[in-house]
Amino acid sequence: MTDAPKDIEALIDIMARLPGLGPRSARRAVLQMIKKRGQLMRPLAETMMRVAETARECLNCGNIGTGDLCPICADDRRANGQICIVEDVADLWAMERGQVFAGRYHVLGGTLSALDDIGPEDLRLPRLMDRVTTETVTEVILALNATVDGQTTAHYIADMFTGSGVSVTSLAQGVPIGGELDYLDDGTISAALRARKAL
Amino acid sequence: MTDAPKDIEALIDIMARLPGLGPRSARRAVLQMIKKRGQLMRPLAETMMRVAETARECLNCGNIGTGDLCPICADDRRANGQICIVEDVADLWAMERGQVFAGRYHVLGGTLSALDDIGPEDLRLPRLMDRVTTETVTEVILALNATVDGQTTAHYIADMFTGSGVSVTSLAQGVPIGGELDYLDDGTISAALRARKAL
Repeated sequence: MTDAPKDIEALIDIMARLPGLGPRSARRAVLQMIKKRGQLMRPLAETMMRVAETARECLNCGNIGTGDLCPICADDRRANGQICIVEDVADLWAMERGQVFAGRYHVLGGTLSALDDIGPEDLRLPRLMDRVTTETVTEVILALNATVDGQTTAHYIADMFTGSGVSVTSLAQGVPIGGELDYLDDGTISAALRARKAL
Repeated sequence: MTDAPKDIEALIDIMARLPGLGPRSARRAVLQMIKKRGQLMRPLAETMMRVAETARECLNCGNIGTGDLCPICADDRRANGQICIVEDVADLWAMERGQVFAGRYHVLGGTLSALDDIGPEDLRLPRLMDRVTTETVTEVILALNATVDGQTTAHYIADMFTGSGVSVTSLAQGVPIGGELDYLDDGTISAALRARKAL
């Protein structure tokens, strides 16, 4: 499609399969890389190769690290009895950027979804039950997306722990910091009103 | 920023510098790659490395190939006396996708720009004059973007060939195929009206 050498065609095809890139932006990215072979393309290829060799899923929580255990699961200071449940590693990173959660995580690897035929056995759920026992967890904090599938999964996990003595909490819903009411959807406003707090 | 292993952080940083990707989409792309190490990340890194080693600018026209001459300049059948002037290689690829131009190209590597301080000596213009003589060019076709800088460059090149006997033409401007008048800007409509043709 581009009359470019075969390797460049192949590179564009693979790049175009990455999320957020289409054929057009893949072509632009590849041209940019070729222009900056030394500073951009070679370091990128080398780093990519290194990550492909070393990156592994943490056997405990599903986070990405380089050993059997990710840095968070290997860090005893983070065994504070709290486990934060997230859908995927991107959400774990988002939580870590917040720099406020001091416990450990559990990456589900997706959400329950009737449409996509994803059931409990497709998620990292059995492992969660094991961890609650072995790591003497007292609180499971649900940080799942506020979508239908996310909320279904949240309810499913809450049910799993009914009567177990483990408290199950969820991130608060409300007005985002810096958010303008006029731009918020009605659902968020009514959730924020219902959860109003005394000043 | 992500608490991920250093190599993964580095990979995200480099990816985020590609056009069309920001930090967020770079994170998503990297996670996707890690999930598909075998089918996606390793082939990508290998192809990238290969392209970084082999890709070269054609010494004649500036297109990207693997030898001193790109496949188009190396192909005698494309020496038909026509040279199509494009701003960059992406535009050359776009023209080739059209599968209608049988001549050769000349990639300027940018446009004249007073704002960005890009003058004729920063573009591949001297080489163009050489080629017109050595390749017995009869027509120079300007396929530059319809922007202010593109059109300034077009006029500059047209002036270069005044009195040289080489005819200088430009891509037609008008209504795109499948375009709806209601969605077109006024400038395009008036250009299309001025250039109207008898049916």
